[in-house]
Amino acid sequence: MGQLTGGDPSLLRRINSAVVLHALRATEHATLTEITRVTGLSRPTVEGVVEGLVETGLVVEQAAEEGAARRQGRPARRFRFRAEAGHLLGLDIGAHRVTALLADLDGRVLGTMSKDVAEKAPADERLERLRTTVAELLRRVGVSRGSLRAVGVGSPGIVEADGTVRLCTALPGWTGLNLGERLSRSFKCPVLVENDANAAAVAEHWKGAAVDSDDVVFVLAGLSPGAGSLIGGRLHRGYGGAAGEIGALHLMGRGATPEALLSTTDKPLHPLDEKAVVEILAHAREGDERARAAFDRFTERLVHDVAALVLALDPELVVIGGWAPGLDDMLDPLRHELARCCLRPPRVTLSRLGEAAVATGALRLALDHVEEELFAVGSTGALR
Amino acid sequence: MGQLTGGDPSLLRRINSAVVLHALRATEHATLTEITRVTGLSRPTVEGVVEGLVETGLVVEQAAEEGAARRQGRPARRFRFRAEAGHLLGLDIGAHRVTALLADLDGRVLGTMSKDVAEKAPADERLERLRTTVAELLRRVGVSRGSLRAVGVGSPGIVEADGTVRLCTALPGWTGLNLGERLSRSFKCPVLVENDANAAAVAEHWKGAAVDSDDVVFVLAGLSPGAGSLIGGRLHRGYGGAAGEIGALHLMGRGATPEALLSTTDKPLHPLDEKAVVEILAHAREGDERARAAFDRFTERLVHDVAALVLALDPELVVIGGWAPGLDDMLDPLRHELARCCLRPPRVTLSRLGEAAVATGALRLALDHVEEELFAVGSTGALR
Repeated sequence: MGQLTGGDPSLLRRINSAVVLHALRATEHATLTEITRVTGLSRPTVEGVVEGLVETGLVVEQAAEEGAARRQGRPARRFRFRAEAGHLLGLDIGAHRVTALLADLDGRVLGTMSKDVAEKAPADERLERLRTTVAELLRRVGVSRGSLRAVGVGSPGIVEADGTVRLCTALPGWTGLNLGERLSRSFKCPVLVENDANAAAVAEHWKGAAVDSDDVVFVLAGLSPGAGSLIGGRLHRGYGGAAGEIGALHLMGRGATPEALLSTTDKPLHPLDEKAVVEILAHAREGDERARAAFDRFTERLVHDVAALVLALDPELVVIGGWAPGLDDMLDPLRHELARCCLRPPRVTLSRLGEAAVATGALRLALDHVEEELFAVGSTGALR
Repeated sequence: MGQLTGGDPSLLRRINSAVVLHALRATEHATLTEITRVTGLSRPTVEGVVEGLVETGLVVEQAAEEGAARRQGRPARRFRFRAEAGHLLGLDIGAHRVTALLADLDGRVLGTMSKDVAEKAPADERLERLRTTVAELLRRVGVSRGSLRAVGVGSPGIVEADGTVRLCTALPGWTGLNLGERLSRSFKCPVLVENDANAAAVAEHWKGAAVDSDDVVFVLAGLSPGAGSLIGGRLHRGYGGAAGEIGALHLMGRGATPEALLSTTDKPLHPLDEKAVVEILAHAREGDERARAAFDRFTERLVHDVAALVLALDPELVVIGGWAPGLDDMLDPLRHELARCCLRPPRVTLSRLGEAAVATGALRLALDHVEEELFAVGSTGALR
């Protein structure tokens, strides 16, 4: 810490660059005088830092014409952050579909592409499908692979810190797969792998139903329900990346699986058969009694699992996502039960991003990583 | 942030003082030369800062005799942190007992005192009991009230950020009580109120069964089970301070209360009758079948509630505390169930601090507060 005040000029340079980048990123363009005022740095320091940033390509001087404000005489030089200096990918690997989102360094989405993939497709085929999706997207938008600064990936299953999928029942050949390492072969930049429900939670907080709350539980409703939690605005992964795996509660005495609960026959549904789920929900809405009963059984289970999560974490907001149709029928039973067992029940709302949530969250994680690199001074600024 | 590198010398002084205090606190005593080496600060800076700290009374120069190391000729001046410059209290308010712990600025415990209190005692009487306990303890140890820098308090119930007890079924007249404000009348220093299970979790992490883990769930087993969680070494209170109130899960369909489950008659136990609990556990151990059955019912409930907590948070370690005798009989059933429903079950162990956990945790919270004040530079050092 002593360095902050004494030695290490390189650290000071890094801090100053970060401060200037922050200032520039918060506005369209700024003069050196404006940057000096906003940052509290000295004029010579600002000039040196901006020069360095222009060299790295992260900042550019605008041609006078561009400059909005004009002064009498010679206009002051204006500089802006070059969001186009690099790009990010957000990827969603699902049971029936893979999706890619491309964005610039401001997180502005430049394009998206999805491809269907067979539910039973082996890991290699699924990964190949993802690669071609990315390649086509890059080509279509006209961004070179070399311009990518970070890639975020949302995947079902329990994902460990190193990007290995510790357990995944949803995708064939996924358990034990080092997804991060496999995808890194296709990219020169860092690849960040995250559980899909966790990614979706991040997305709803970024630009969805949870923008106003830092303490959020996102429930990926479905035949294998999962959940992601934000605590104080930060993702809570758990010690082994398994936080929110509430689905397993039913292993305890409460034997029936969601597939069995939601089935209108004696035979449980196929664990991944979301079409069947949607049909049953539709029938339930049309008043079909067996479908209604199945939906109620299924809802009761989900409600109990979510309640357990809420009692453990005490979030401000619960966001329900997953397959959209019929989901809203679950909100009232959930609110009712939470009102019974919580002193201050959380607000309960539907996902606003729907199917785009996972890829959007993956993109945000990639953006976080790049911002870390560009702007953070690490913990060097803090004492403990 | 620019200030760090440019203006605001007062911030730099604060950083430097904090750095020097850290260095001195980590050792018995140090010379200016040693401090200069450890902190990376310049010699003149160190001299100025130490002088200032001596004036505040937080640092003192040792008489030459004290100095351990001697050099040829005149010995170098040695300085040490004055842990005795201030004091802290950790208070535990229970249904049957109040306890006070007194410590110095290093958290070294100088004395402790407990007094029984009637389970049905109204709030005023309970608080008065606590005050006399504190007064006697201060007198016995010979510390003046004015020397107190912070007071931590552990209490049953859901405690809000401002120290108000939002809900407490265990203590008469406790719900709605602004405990922080009430106790502040007796102290000039800050009073920090915390849920008892939360405080116990902090204590086990500080000097108990969880010293080696930063991701811990502490379960206060008993007739109204509660839990406290540490995530990344920090207490997780939840948005409304209700995190870990797993007891309420049984409201959902599973009607029977712990008092009913643990009863060996048709009549449920009194919610606070821990003596009866201990007796039943004893009988169960001696092989009494009805007691055994009651214990098993009770354990099954607790195990389910703890499992819900573990699935939500994915901790590294679960610490079971509360009334000691018979608790260890719960560890194996708990381990067994967690192994069934968790991919990587957490370690499960008994509290090491036992009855002292809550007061010890309250003391640690007071110490944290003082260290914040003495050593933290706040977030001024970080960019975001």
